[in-house]
Amino acid sequence: MAVAVYPGTFDPITNGHLDLIKRSLRMFDRLIVAIFDNPMKGPLFTVEERRRLVEEATRGLPNLEIDTFNTLLVLYAKQRNADVIIRGLRAIADFEYEFQMTLMNRRLDENIQTVFLMPREEYTYVSSRLIKEVAAYGGDVERLVPPPVAAALKEKFRRP
Amino acid sequence: MAVAVYPGTFDPITNGHLDLIKRSLRMFDRLIVAIFDNPMKGPLFTVEERRRLVEEATRGLPNLEIDTFNTLLVLYAKQRNADVIIRGLRAIADFEYEFQMTLMNRRLDENIQTVFLMPREEYTYVSSRLIKEVAAYGGDVERLVPPPVAAALKEKFRRP
Amino acid sequence: MAVAVYPGTFDPITNGHLDLIKRSLRMFDRLIVAIFDNPMKGPLFTVEERRRLVEEATRGLPNLEIDTFNTLLVLYAKQRNADVIIRGLRAIADFEYEFQMTLMNRRLDENIQTVFLMPREEYTYVSSRLIKEVAAYGGDVERLVPPPVAAALKEKFRRP
Amino acid sequence: MAVAVYPGTFDPITNGHLDLIKRSLRMFDRLIVAIFDNPMKGPLFTVEERRRLVEEATRGLPNLEIDTFNTLLVLYAKQRNADVIIRGLRAIADFEYEFQMTLMNRRLDENIQTVFLMPREEYTYVSSRLIKEVAAYGGDVERLVPPPVAAALKEKFRRP
Amino acid sequence: MAVAVYPGTFDPITNGHLDLIKRSLRMFDRLIVAIFDNPMKGPLFTVEERRRLVEEATRGLPNLEIDTFNTLLVLYAKQRNADVIIRGLRAIADFEYEFQMTLMNRRLDENIQTVFLMPREEYTYVSSRLIKEVAAYGGDVERLVPPPVAAALKEKFRRP
Amino acid sequence: MAVAVYPGTFDPITNGHLDLIKRSLRMFDRLIVAIFDNPMKGPLFTVEERRRLVEEATRGLPNLEIDTFNTLLVLYAKQRNADVIIRGLRAIADFEYEFQMTLMNRRLDENIQTVFLMPREEYTYVSSRLIKEVAAYGGDVERLVPPPVAAALKEKFRRP
Repeated sequence: MAVAVYPGTFDPITNGHLDLIKRSLRMFDRLIVAIFDNPMKGPLFTVEERRRLVEEATRGLPNLEIDTFNTLLVLYAKQRNADVIIRGLRAIADFEYEFQMTLMNRRLDENIQTVFLMPREEYTYVSSRLIKEVAAYGGDVERLVPPPVAAALKEKFRRP
Repeated sequence: MAVAVYPGTFDPITNGHLDLIKRSLRMFDRLIVAIFDNPMKGPLFTVEERRRLVEEATRGLPNLEIDTFNTLLVLYAKQRNADVIIRGLRAIADFEYEFQMTLMNRRLDENIQTVFLMPREEYTYVSSRLIKEVAAYGGDVERLVPPPVAAALKEKFRRP
Repeated sequence: MAVAVYPGTFDPITNGHLDLIKRSLRMFDRLIVAIFDNPMKGPLFTVEERRRLVEEATRGLPNLEIDTFNTLLVLYAKQRNADVIIRGLRAIADFEYEFQMTLMNRRLDENIQTVFLMPREEYTYVSSRLIKEVAAYGGDVERLVPPPVAAALKEKFRRP
Repeated sequence: MAVAVYPGTFDPITNGHLDLIKRSLRMFDRLIVAIFDNPMKGPLFTVEERRRLVEEATRGLPNLEIDTFNTLLVLYAKQRNADVIIRGLRAIADFEYEFQMTLMNRRLDENIQTVFLMPREEYTYVSSRLIKEVAAYGGDVERLVPPPVAAALKEKFRRP
Repeated sequence: MAVAVYPGTFDPITNGHLDLIKRSLRMFDRLIVAIFDNPMKGPLFTVEERRRLVEEATRGLPNLEIDTFNTLLVLYAKQRNADVIIRGLRAIADFEYEFQMTLMNRRLDENIQTVFLMPREEYTYVSSRLIKEVAAYGGDVERLVPPPVAAALKEKFRRP
Repeated sequence: MAVAVYPGTFDPITNGHLDLIKRSLRMFDRLIVAIFDNPMKGPLFTVEERRRLVEEATRGLPNLEIDTFNTLLVLYAKQRNADVIIRGLRAIADFEYEFQMTLMNRRLDENIQTVFLMPREEYTYVSSRLIKEVAAYGGDVERLVPPPVAAALKEKFRRP
């Protein structure tokens, strides 16, 4: 029974993330969405807010667990007895960074495999960073994020 | 129970291929190594030779089937009731071609997922093409291919 | 009044090409779709067939001319008094080749500008080569090419 | 009559930017150089200084307007009734970011086209960032920027 | 007699750096390892600590000098009468940045050549940044850095 | 005393090649320009013609030897007691292929170093292939190749 971890900052979760979560659930027996709780990165949403948005966006999906972690990914994966780490690939820049991380992670634990998935082409340009940038200026991101995220972004960037 | 297909020309199978086969077997319940039988590509080894070399190199690995196909990959995967297509990623050039193929394959059959794996770093430079080039000039490829492949290459390129 | 040339092999024209033609017509006063007639490249369709398919696919579009050429692109553009050469960019590999060609073309004629456009994301993976490969195996390409092209591909690859 | 916007931080304007401005003026009826006024990015020159340097560098060029903006580019382009957004491409890293931005911008406003131009090869390595770095250490940048910019950089980095 | 400079932040020196130092010593008559002393970059180790770690890691290597600099690299190389600047290439992202720097450096001093070397494949993923990240979380980096660096990292990140 | 080999097809030698030859001569004590004599690749010029063009283009340069080879590069380099293999890097595609070749060559002979040089930016787009393509259509390549090569190309492509 293969257990997979899908790690990320999820600040906030996008339709691209959701697409990869659904694809992963077709392949693996159990999936842990693991939100990286890194206080240094200065996220827009707190880890609690990010967790709540992931929960609302994935409601009803079976075999899914949502968790947070604040250590090396590969140590976390080992603790959780995961066999597989899932990463999304959108661009060449992703590819290079992911390649280095994969090789480093293997050295730290040879038993955990990293697999890469590609999101639907319409989500190729949907990064959390770009969505926050557009939302900050009042641009419409409704078809790019789950409804509770669209609402939360509107709330965050509401002009007083 | 997830079934995966690992397609390729395998002309001939290398240690890089073998590394990905072993990684896949840790994640999926059954793996089909599917040798593409394309008469137009002018392979060094016939499809029967390639099949025999894959068999010898993977002897003893459980949950593994070896097959040949000569149609569109995604049609083949569907016929075999596979859930997953496995591809290796070594370089940026691979990445771009694979990205296009993945999107095309999804359009042809949305239910089959493509996952990408990275070989060990020592196999990053081990392509079948490069191995044939080195072997043709009498260079030593013994640590880069399984022993029966090393013997078969020596035989092919034996100077009369 | 800016005149633009959109050169290519168009073997055959795809929805991605058509998308760029429509984008170009919004920006330039006149557009010449210039089909490269290179007997060495071994196209699937003859230059007459390719021209007819472009004509059928672009019927009704204003300010558009269809032509063929068999010389250096930049010499052709000069003959036609074009100000602009239009090229599509889909991938990194395109980018590098196009970059070299642009610099060479400038050296040959400094007065002709090259501009790059990106197709809709759903056409990112639609290359003429890939479409021919899928059609050859009986895969469905109907939403990726204009209707007369889909019919022509079916005809070409009809099993006797 | 096609109106084009050439947006950027222009901190400061370089000969590479100037090259693209001149190329654009050959293709489009009117060009707006739009300086992004983003207080968060911590530019070396204030938006007023950057505007003055662009004005001095482009003096005498016809059909050119200089403006500043501090909203989403695509909203600004729409307000100004622009048909085209112009972007420079120098490197793969540019390409990827630009590709994502273009797809996002299209989603926000389908009617505005993005075109990419390549600077002369001698300006391939001329980025505002690199020029500031070299100038900060007293390196000579005189042939890489317009004369008023060279003077302004000398003034900024004058050792007391 | 060719003199080469190998510049870097060396924060801290890794086995990848050491591999390039040894390769360079086989090709050039004298090698200066030049540690960039940039107070703005916020290094983990002070320039004195970095220098001491380079000294300990390279003890016994002939024809080697260790120095620090805080000016433009090409000005420093000229002062030291170096003929060659050595740079490591690991990834596409490196390649692009290095390409721009090389062209800029040539403009500043045409007489100094830049050569690029590739580290052993097992060090492809060994960047100082990644090593610090892993060490900060208590991950094992002992085979990736020289022993005195492993000790210094443990000391830096010791939990009180 | 470091000996370097600069291998290539040189079909024909360009100003970009010549630029790298001159750069190499500033760094190494002796340079062997090694023309790959591969009958399968279908060159435009015979190996004798290519050798003569290299000789004419490099006349008067000291410490230079011109040779041909038809074996694995690394075996050839070893036979000639070379310490260094020199390769030009122009583009990402070059980079990836060169990276694989370098790692393979090291495995075949760990004692031979590969170094990469970048040509002047004005030669970034000057490949032998592109020059032949332009010359075949009567385009002017005079500033891109040495004078004897320009003459030889004119002769080859003379219309009867």
